[in-house]
Amino acid sequence: MESINLVKVRRGNHIESVHRGHVAVVDSNGNLMNFAGNPYGKVYARSSMKPVQTIPLIETGAADTYEFSDADLSLCCASHNGESMHTDRVLEILKRIGLKDNSLQCGTHPPRWEETYKKLIREGKEITPLYNNCSGKHTGMLATAKYMNEPIETYYRVDHPVQQRILTAVSEICDYPKEDIEIGIDGCGVPVHGLPLINLAFGYAVMANPEKLNKKRAETVKRITNAMIAAPEMVGGTNRFCTDFMKTGKGRFFGKAGAEAVYCIGDKETGLGIAIKVEDGNGRAMYPVAVEVLNQLGLLTEHQIEDLMNHYKPKLRNARKEEIGQLIPDFTLQKA
Amino acid sequence: MESINLVKVRRGNHIESVHRGHVAVVDSNGNLMNFAGNPYGKVYARSSMKPVQTIPLIETGAADTYEFSDADLSLCCASHNGESMHTDRVLEILKRIGLKDNSLQCGTHPPRWEETYKKLIREGKEITPLYNNCSGKHTGMLATAKYMNEPIETYYRVDHPVQQRILTAVSEICDYPKEDIEIGIDGCGVPVHGLPLINLAFGYAVMANPEKLNKKRAETVKRITNAMIAAPEMVGGTNRFCTDFMKTGKGRFFGKAGAEAVYCIGDKETGLGIAIKVEDGNGRAMYPVAVEVLNQLGLLTEHQIEDLMNHYKPKLRNARKEEIGQLIPDFTLQKA
Repeated sequence: MESINLVKVRRGNHIESVHRGHVAVVDSNGNLMNFAGNPYGKVYARSSMKPVQTIPLIETGAADTYEFSDADLSLCCASHNGESMHTDRVLEILKRIGLKDNSLQCGTHPPRWEETYKKLIREGKEITPLYNNCSGKHTGMLATAKYMNEPIETYYRVDHPVQQRILTAVSEICDYPKEDIEIGIDGCGVPVHGLPLINLAFGYAVMANPEKLNKKRAETVKRITNAMIAAPEMVGGTNRFCTDFMKTGKGRFFGKAGAEAVYCIGDKETGLGIAIKVEDGNGRAMYPVAVEVLNQLGLLTEHQIEDLMNHYKPKLRNARKEEIGQLIPDFTLQKA
Repeated sequence: MESINLVKVRRGNHIESVHRGHVAVVDSNGNLMNFAGNPYGKVYARSSMKPVQTIPLIETGAADTYEFSDADLSLCCASHNGESMHTDRVLEILKRIGLKDNSLQCGTHPPRWEETYKKLIREGKEITPLYNNCSGKHTGMLATAKYMNEPIETYYRVDHPVQQRILTAVSEICDYPKEDIEIGIDGCGVPVHGLPLINLAFGYAVMANPEKLNKKRAETVKRITNAMIAAPEMVGGTNRFCTDFMKTGKGRFFGKAGAEAVYCIGDKETGLGIAIKVEDGNGRAMYPVAVEVLNQLGLLTEHQIEDLMNHYKPKLRNARKEEIGQLIPDFTLQKA
C-alpha cells in the first residue's frame, strides 16, 4: 500500500509541491476505522511518544515525590519553544530533584522561540541543553533516575533502566511486542520507537479511553493526558499547533507532534486514536492533515475549525509579507 | 506519470522518510535523454532561473555601462548566504549605479549565514533587504531599470519592462511559449516562471552549449555561466552545494538551486541540461539527487564525488552531534 497525496502546496494558480503520507484511525478496541495510504507501515513515533514516555515518571512514584504539577507533567510531554515559561519551569523542577541543567544530556540547538534566541545572543550567553525542545522530557527522565537511585549520567542510553521502563510502557500501551520495536536515536539522544502506524494510533486510543488498562495504569494515563490538556502552553508554546489545538479542544482532545512529520491525537469522547505520518518528513504538512482528518470524522465544531484555520489551511507569505500561496489538505479517508 | 522515490532518509536501521520527485536530462538539440518520474510536469523554476534572469542585464548594455565584473554577475545569479562578501558587493554595485539599498524591494528574512545574523543582533541592527538571499538578483534588475530610464520603485512587478524582458528571455532560452508560462510570485516578490521540467532542462542545455543561439545571445549566456564558474562563492557561499559543486567542476559545470527543491545543471562538455524537482519541496533532498544523476550519467570523476560527499550522502546528526542516520539517493534514471 502506497502513500497517497495529502497536502497540496499552491503558489498562485499552480500546485508547486505535494506532500504524501499515511493516516490510521483506530478505536480503543484496536479496530482500524479509517485510513489513508498504508496504516501498517512502521514509523518512528519520535516526540509523539512523549506522553507514553512520561508513564514511568508517575508509576515509579518519582512524580509524586518531587511534586510534579500538571504543568510540570505537561512540560515532560513537550517539544517546547524554549520560551521563558518553559525554561524557567525546567530549572525549577531540576532544583526540586536536586540537580542542575548540566545534567541534561539532550544536546543543544537554537531555541525555537526566536525572541529567546535573540536574547541569548544579545546577552552573549551560551545556548545550553536547557533550551532544547526536549529538555522537559529529559528532566522527567532525570527525576525517575534520581528517585530510583540509578546512574544519572547515562539516563539517555537504551540499556539504562529509565529507557527500559519506557520501552515496556510503549510496548504495553501500543500493544506491540517489545522485540519488534525498531530502536533508533532521537534528535535529543534518547531511543526512538519504531512501530506500525496503526499501533501508534491504538496507543492514543488507549490513552483516550484507558478503561481496559489496570486501574493504576489507567489513572496514570489520565493524569498525563489531563495535564497536557490543563497546561497546553507547556506542550508547545506560542503559535504552536499542539497548544492551540488542545486549547480549542476544551478537554476533549490531546495531541502531540513528532519530528519528521508525525502527528498523533486522542479523542476522549469517542475513544478514537489518530496517527499521521507525512512520508517526506516535512512538518509543515502535518497540521493541515490533522485538522482535515478530524474534520472528515466529524469531530470538530465549525468554531474549532475556524480557531485552527491558520494551521489548517495556512497562507504562505514571502519576504515582502505578500500572500503568495497556501497549503491545502486534499485527500479522502477510506473506511476500513 | 507519477513521481518516483529519489532519496531515502535513514535513521538507525530504518527508513524514516522518503523524498519523491522528477528528473529530466536533455541534450542541446532538445532531445530527452534520461528521466525519472514525469519530465513533462510544470514546475516553478524559482531561483534556478536566475542565470536566465541575468540575460537582459547584459543585453541592454547595463552591465557594461556599470562595469559588472564576473563576481558581480555571479552575485546576480545567486541565492547567497548573506556573508559579508555578498552584502559588501551588493552595496558596491548599488553605489556604482547611483542607488542605495533602500531601493531593494526583495523584503527581509534572517540572513542564511548564522554568523551574519548573530552579528546583526549583537549590534542591535535591523535586518534589511540587503541580507535577503536574492539581493544580488534585485540589484541586477535595478541596474537594468536605471540604465533604461525605467521606473525604479516598481521594477519587481510583472508588467514592468524589466520583468517583461526577463519573461521573453525565459521563453526563448527554454523554447516555451510566453503565454503558456505560469506566473506566480517568488519569495522575494518578483515573478516566478512555471514551465515543464523538460523545458527547464533544455534551457540549461542551451546555456551549456549556446552555439545555436544568435551570436550576441550566445556571448551573453557564456559570460553569465562563466561568471558563475569564475566566482562560485558568490552564487551560494560557505558550505553551499552550488558553490562547492562549481568549484570541483573546474569550468565544466554550472548549477543553481531553486526554492521548493528545484535543481538545474548545465554541462559544458556534453551540452547536457539537467532539471530536478523534489515533489515535496524539501531542499535537503535535491543535492543528493543532483550528484546521483551526474554519477549515473558518468559525468563525475571519483575525486569529484568524494569532494561532494557531504552533499551527496549527508550524514544526519542530532543535537548531541551523534551520527543518527543518513540521506541516501536511491533511484535509477530511465533512458528516454
